[in-house]
Amino acid sequence: MKSSDLPFIFINSAMSADGKLSTKERKQVKISGRADFERVDTLRAASDGIMVGIGTMLSDNPSLTVKSEERRKERVLEGKEENPVRIIVDSHAKTPTDADIFKKGKGKKIIVVSKAAPADKMNSLEKNPDTKIIVADSNGLGRVDLVEMAKLLRKEGIKALMVEGGATLNAGILAAGIVDEIYTFVGNIIIGGKNAPTFADGAGFSENELLRLELISFEKIEDGILLKWKVKNE
Amino acid sequence: MKSSDLPFIFINSAMSADGKLSTKERKQVKISGRADFERVDTLRAASDGIMVGIGTMLSDNPSLTVKSEERRKERVLEGKEENPVRIIVDSHAKTPTDADIFKKGKGKKIIVVSKAAPADKMNSLEKNPDTKIIVADSNGLGRVDLVEMAKLLRKEGIKALMVEGGATLNAGILAAGIVDEIYTFVGNIIIGGKNAPTFADGAGFSENELLRLELISFEKIEDGILLKWKVKNE
Repeated sequence: MKSSDLPFIFINSAMSADGKLSTKERKQVKISGRADFERVDTLRAASDGIMVGIGTMLSDNPSLTVKSEERRKERVLEGKEENPVRIIVDSHAKTPTDADIFKKGKGKKIIVVSKAAPADKMNSLEKNPDTKIIVADSNGLGRVDLVEMAKLLRKEGIKALMVEGGATLNAGILAAGIVDEIYTFVGNIIIGGKNAPTFADGAGFSENELLRLELISFEKIEDGILLKWKVKNE
Repeated sequence: MKSSDLPFIFINSAMSADGKLSTKERKQVKISGRADFERVDTLRAASDGIMVGIGTMLSDNPSLTVKSEERRKERVLEGKEENPVRIIVDSHAKTPTDADIFKKGKGKKIIVVSKAAPADKMNSLEKNPDTKIIVADSNGLGRVDLVEMAKLLRKEGIKALMVEGGATLNAGILAAGIVDEIYTFVGNIIIGGKNAPTFADGAGFSENELLRLELISFEKIEDGILLKWKVKNE
């Protein structure tokens, strides 16, 4: 049973019909169209935090902002910042100090690190406006403890957390048992490739550890289909 | 445009919600239930040939028979063999001579090999009743030429060919441009794992090579969803 001191956490992802997030070269390709773009932007605007892992940060340099001006205005009218808190899971503080999250859009940024993160790099990152470093690594394992992180983020006021990948972070938070729902837009392409990132990479589950889901809904959107799953955390 | 001297080729596969066919240990897990089992058996009974790659042969030792006695009887009433022709794509003739396809169920078996397959192994395999070796490797590359194979199978009377994986064969025939349709049952589990087999492994496509699909239909079956795609071969 999920603890109540955690945010509601959902993963939103677009994948190819064969479950890939990008090509073997980690090149993002167009999987969904305009309608799905708007759906994702609406989800972002309704969230308190938007999270990606360091792999996605380094390969895509996403700004993680709400794209629609109207939706940003609505947030402000509701007394919120224009953008949800942008959060990077980054054990070794490898986020570039000039990443787009620091340059594009207003609002708070949180970099979640482990005790192995170099102090000088953390100091540089924190010089960016509205940027906070959170250490979530009580056991000193040198990697972010995702459950501890989720609790700390809840204390920061994050009640609804949207995770946008990539493959390693998705696998990590699923394995940590803290994901409530999964939304996958399955697009009309095959990417293939033994080494292309999939929706959930990481170590993977063995037969007796498989994560069980419940199909909440499905809906054709343009040329693909949106599947919504509820995660049955034991 | 697909040549008319090829069979109608479709891939049928059950995958997890994250696009995996089995665990990182290549262990098959239950992805679908009874209703999907019957659907797959019906598809088999309606096909002229059922094909898997050598990886699937070696890890699962499938019998590839039609499971329902009634469906087998119907085939016989239609003047067919009880089972469709069972076909293994096996460049180096590594199919065990005592594999279940030789022991279970009646009907023809075809092992498709390359010129690199050892003669003694081919002779042993061909000693099994109703078993034929086909060499499809005109260019002498030491691996099965899948387009050549498809043409040879058409000459053997295979008009409708059902491909049941695994990840490498799926990727190969998709890359060869000879697949007409893809049916994926997406089940309500997450398997995860960077090294778990996915629906299509192989080398993978780069951005400008992506295979385009068209969603034909979708249908909830028990706890998962069946997606039918048409492949847009250029």
